[in-house]
Amino acid sequence: MLLRLSSLFVRTLREDPVDAEVASHRLLVRAGYIRRAAPGIYTWLPLGLRVLAKVEAVVREEMAAAGAQEVHFPALLPREPYEATGRWTEYGPNIFRLKDRKGGDYLLAPTHEELFTLLVKDLYSSYKDLPLTLFQVQTKYRDEARPRAGLIRGREFIMKDAYSFDVDDEGLAQSYQRQRDAYERIFTRLGLEYVIVAATSGAMGGSRSEEFLTPTAIGEDTFVRSAGGYAANVEAVTTVVPDAVPFDDAPAAHVEDTPDTPTIDTLVALANERFARPDRAWTAADTLKNVVLALVHPTGERELVVVGLPGDREVDLKRLEAAVSPAEVEPAGEADFAAHPEIVKGYLGPAVLGPNPTGQAADDETRTSLRYLLDPRVAAGTRWITGANEPGRHVFDLVAGRDFTADGTIEAAEVRAGDPAPDGSGPLELARGIEIGHIFALGRKYAQALGLTVLNQNGKAVVVTMGSYGIGVTRVLAALAEANHDERGLAWPPGVAPAHVHVVATGKDAAVFEAAESLATTLSARGIEVLYDDRPKVAPGVKFNDAELFGVPLVVVVGRGLAEGVVEVRPRVAVEGGPAAEQVPVSEAADRVAELVDDLLAG
Amino acid sequence: MLLRLSSLFVRTLREDPVDAEVASHRLLVRAGYIRRAAPGIYTWLPLGLRVLAKVEAVVREEMAAAGAQEVHFPALLPREPYEATGRWTEYGPNIFRLKDRKGGDYLLAPTHEELFTLLVKDLYSSYKDLPLTLFQVQTKYRDEARPRAGLIRGREFIMKDAYSFDVDDEGLAQSYQRQRDAYERIFTRLGLEYVIVAATSGAMGGSRSEEFLTPTAIGEDTFVRSAGGYAANVEAVTTVVPDAVPFDDAPAAHVEDTPDTPTIDTLVALANERFARPDRAWTAADTLKNVVLALVHPTGERELVVVGLPGDREVDLKRLEAAVSPAEVEPAGEADFAAHPEIVKGYLGPAVLGPNPTGQAADDETRTSLRYLLDPRVAAGTRWITGANEPGRHVFDLVAGRDFTADGTIEAAEVRAGDPAPDGSGPLELARGIEIGHIFALGRKYAQALGLTVLNQNGKAVVVTMGSYGIGVTRVLAALAEANHDERGLAWPPGVAPAHVHVVATGKDAAVFEAAESLATTLSARGIEVLYDDRPKVAPGVKFNDAELFGVPLVVVVGRGLAEGVVEVRPRVAVEGGPAAEQVPVSEAADRVAELVDDLLAG
Repeated sequence: MLLRLSSLFVRTLREDPVDAEVASHRLLVRAGYIRRAAPGIYTWLPLGLRVLAKVEAVVREEMAAAGAQEVHFPALLPREPYEATGRWTEYGPNIFRLKDRKGGDYLLAPTHEELFTLLVKDLYSSYKDLPLTLFQVQTKYRDEARPRAGLIRGREFIMKDAYSFDVDDEGLAQSYQRQRDAYERIFTRLGLEYVIVAATSGAMGGSRSEEFLTPTAIGEDTFVRSAGGYAANVEAVTTVVPDAVPFDDAPAAHVEDTPDTPTIDTLVALANERFARPDRAWTAADTLKNVVLALVHPTGERELVVVGLPGDREVDLKRLEAAVSPAEVEPAGEADFAAHPEIVKGYLGPAVLGPNPTGQAADDETRTSLRYLLDPRVAAGTRWITGANEPGRHVFDLVAGRDFTADGTIEAAEVRAGDPAPDGSGPLELARGIEIGHIFALGRKYAQALGLTVLNQNGKAVVVTMGSYGIGVTRVLAALAEANHDERGLAWPPGVAPAHVHVVATGKDAAVFEAAESLATTLSARGIEVLYDDRPKVAPGVKFNDAELFGVPLVVVVGRGLAEGVVEVRPRVAVEGGPAAEQVPVSEAADRVAELVDDLLAG
Repeated sequence: MLLRLSSLFVRTLREDPVDAEVASHRLLVRAGYIRRAAPGIYTWLPLGLRVLAKVEAVVREEMAAAGAQEVHFPALLPREPYEATGRWTEYGPNIFRLKDRKGGDYLLAPTHEELFTLLVKDLYSSYKDLPLTLFQVQTKYRDEARPRAGLIRGREFIMKDAYSFDVDDEGLAQSYQRQRDAYERIFTRLGLEYVIVAATSGAMGGSRSEEFLTPTAIGEDTFVRSAGGYAANVEAVTTVVPDAVPFDDAPAAHVEDTPDTPTIDTLVALANERFARPDRAWTAADTLKNVVLALVHPTGERELVVVGLPGDREVDLKRLEAAVSPAEVEPAGEADFAAHPEIVKGYLGPAVLGPNPTGQAADDETRTSLRYLLDPRVAAGTRWITGANEPGRHVFDLVAGRDFTADGTIEAAEVRAGDPAPDGSGPLELARGIEIGHIFALGRKYAQALGLTVLNQNGKAVVVTMGSYGIGVTRVLAALAEANHDERGLAWPPGVAPAHVHVVATGKDAAVFEAAESLATTLSARGIEVLYDDRPKVAPGVKFNDAELFGVPLVVVVGRGLAEGVVEVRPRVAVEGGPAAEQVPVSEAADRVAELVDDLLAG
């Protein structure tokens, strides 16, 4: 394979695209790998398409090695199967919907559980047909509210999605593990660092799910790890619930004037000054903050709820959304407060929230109809300073379980470094990553909804249990670019680079171009993929800059040294243990480059 | 490659699918290659996907050999570029349109001229960058009114579309020829018979276009050929216009009562009986039939027109649609006639049609506002029997150019076998075919509309001239199935078959399965693609039927003969000069099969 830059359809850009927030987006566009067609929708140019094909090939090989068989579903699908599982509604505005000329409802599929389920139902009927794992590499669609970061969160993207079908839970566990192992091999082969974390299942449903994240500061996902081996997406972290505190000796609650305390800090300062605790100082963690938020259900219904949590923590909207999925969350607005005069903004407290614990009928009339959901830290017996439902007043020593109760608990508070791991394995560290894979033990949700059963050994129909396994192929490519670049450009791992070696001819000397041409064709004839910068009138500096942008792992410069009979062979990025720049006699150049390419590909 | 039928995701069907009209559809579904997901939308199962990948590979190789570079565009695209060229409207109901969550208009692209034009505009600016040919293999969408024949007319399908960019007409002619040559190589390699015919450009626009058709009785397209080498799609055939006839001596027109002449035949019989011509008998070709039809323009506007043509020919709706493209054609209904009382159904004649040739102002008031379009055979001086615009009356000796004129001519009459070729190369023969490729010399339509110019050698901006070249990849696969099957199943050409050899183990003897297993793995290790029927409890008859359905070119039966030390090697279909069934000693089977596979692949 020999690509000549004089005719290759590519142009590098000196300027960053204005909408590019992250390095992979910036560099993939600048190096001429991709081009924006619409928000979150990209065109692939020849160099980008080559990298994409290599990533896809690794995915396909490992899927085949794991016994998965490839099929291919349409992207344009009728509404009915998604209606049967409830997802037509659950996906809300996140899917593209359309009507055909006859008025039939269609969608652009974001994922294909329904179709795989129906296909297996169509073809298979016996436990002898299982286990079965199918996969496809396919273009998917999501109407993201905020497409961003180039390929990382797009609206048209390529996914590998696989689905396993088993007759029982044990089979599912094995199929799940086989895919999990295949994912580890795929990311290892691609040279992409990954962490496997416990995850929530979201709109997908199911009993168990794990995410593969590649750690990077620009990741959209936050995950936690403990020294003892716990790892989870922050949405999946459960709060360690404190033991109930006996409250027989707790003082009675008392309402106090708290003028000039617009913030929690000023409230805590006033509390320590005027209502000092004998045992220790009040802190923000002793205050109970009640936040009004709107849940937007997939049906479009907007429900206000109140979330109560310690004043030293913020609501984490992504954790809250995971907890209320498939609903989405919006802040409450002025109109919401106007519609609920019982809610006194800034002074909202449990006296008007949650079920009435007093037993006094009169109390009910003052209570709001909104659901009140508490952070698990607000355990029975804990004492709080909180709003008294009147401007300028707070209530002290309000005891959970004695003075107030809630409609339920919710995991909505932020997770912080140092919080305890739920499994007792030590304090948590926080890091950020990009989700590159997600595997779900779905169980029987889809098979049940769509009637996928097989006859078991006793001739009895049993509902099939399924797994679903996704890799964001285009996102993996972006993650690779993110992990393999410097300020000057891309620096691809050899296995996915658009070429193995980039031959640069510099200057105007015909002998240089002849030698470079000869080297390029010799290497290409030996099966090495060559990008050859044969542009006749381009300055060496421009060629070197382009080579650094393109990111081919090995660069061969044929130029001034040729007068002394040598060419320079150098790695795009020098790494420890990797090749260093060297001057090679031109007669030995092809052999030496072939050797280095073999070493690089062997990893 | 070794596919074991015991675990391969496939089920053959004994019954034809109810909606299958053609053999390729019927057999591809029955053999488990594809499966319907919605009207005109199909899922690819493992065997189908293998054939598809082989067809795509041939297309890609020949595109690369022709110097075309691969890119990949999104399917989901914003309205704007299609608005700029007018195609957002022109496509009418034939494209899928949708809105994103912000209300932006999008479409699922049926073809990508606009996007390719804009991409080249983005990257290139000089004549030195040209010529350039780009291509993609991509999923396309058309909201067909009548999806039919399985993959032949689908709503989601795969196309290879290529686009050439040149600075002048000579360059375009060369680029066009290079693609044309590549198409010939592609169809030759695929073993698909083809005819290249002149075609109309339809909604695509442009100066020249040719279709590649594969001849088959079930084809949707009719094409013509003359012994002298003329070939055209029937829509592109132009009528040989007769010379003008002097009419100085022609009798004056006269209106006659013509009772009981509901059909042209009865009218001609009456004419010969009561108004006999001295020179020859009247025939249906002497009558002028005026047909009212509705054009539905892409904007939705419905326009009635009258088409006048000799009474011995029918209107060919496809030819008419090509002539009025992008409008579509519908029959006129009762409401249309009611809205136009000047139109007397069954007796419509030129006295109320077309521009007034009499010069008498009073005449104008009786004329219809509908456009009157004439078949080119209605040349100046020709004499006609036609309607007198009163029930039961016809006008005789009405002379074109003397007694009536029209608003224009139109190619709407059917083409018949024996009609003269427009280039004088002899009488035409008619045949049917499937359109498998279409190439267009587009010219400057898209570049002009979207502002794609480059600086020429004199530093002057010139509009780029383009070509557009499409192959329906999924349709080619169907055409291959159509051309290569018998009543028992598919019979793939070796180059695209899902496997090279199908090993069938029959009976229950463990030795048979051991020998078959050994042969299958040996062949696979030698790089031969093997489909191995290792199903333990399936009757030989079922296995043979499946082998015939699947259509792998070479079948090896390991069964009863093994007791005598032989296996049977036979072609799926015996062809002259091809392999015949033979008994091969089991020890030599692998070598013999390898040899036969080599021969088959070498063609």
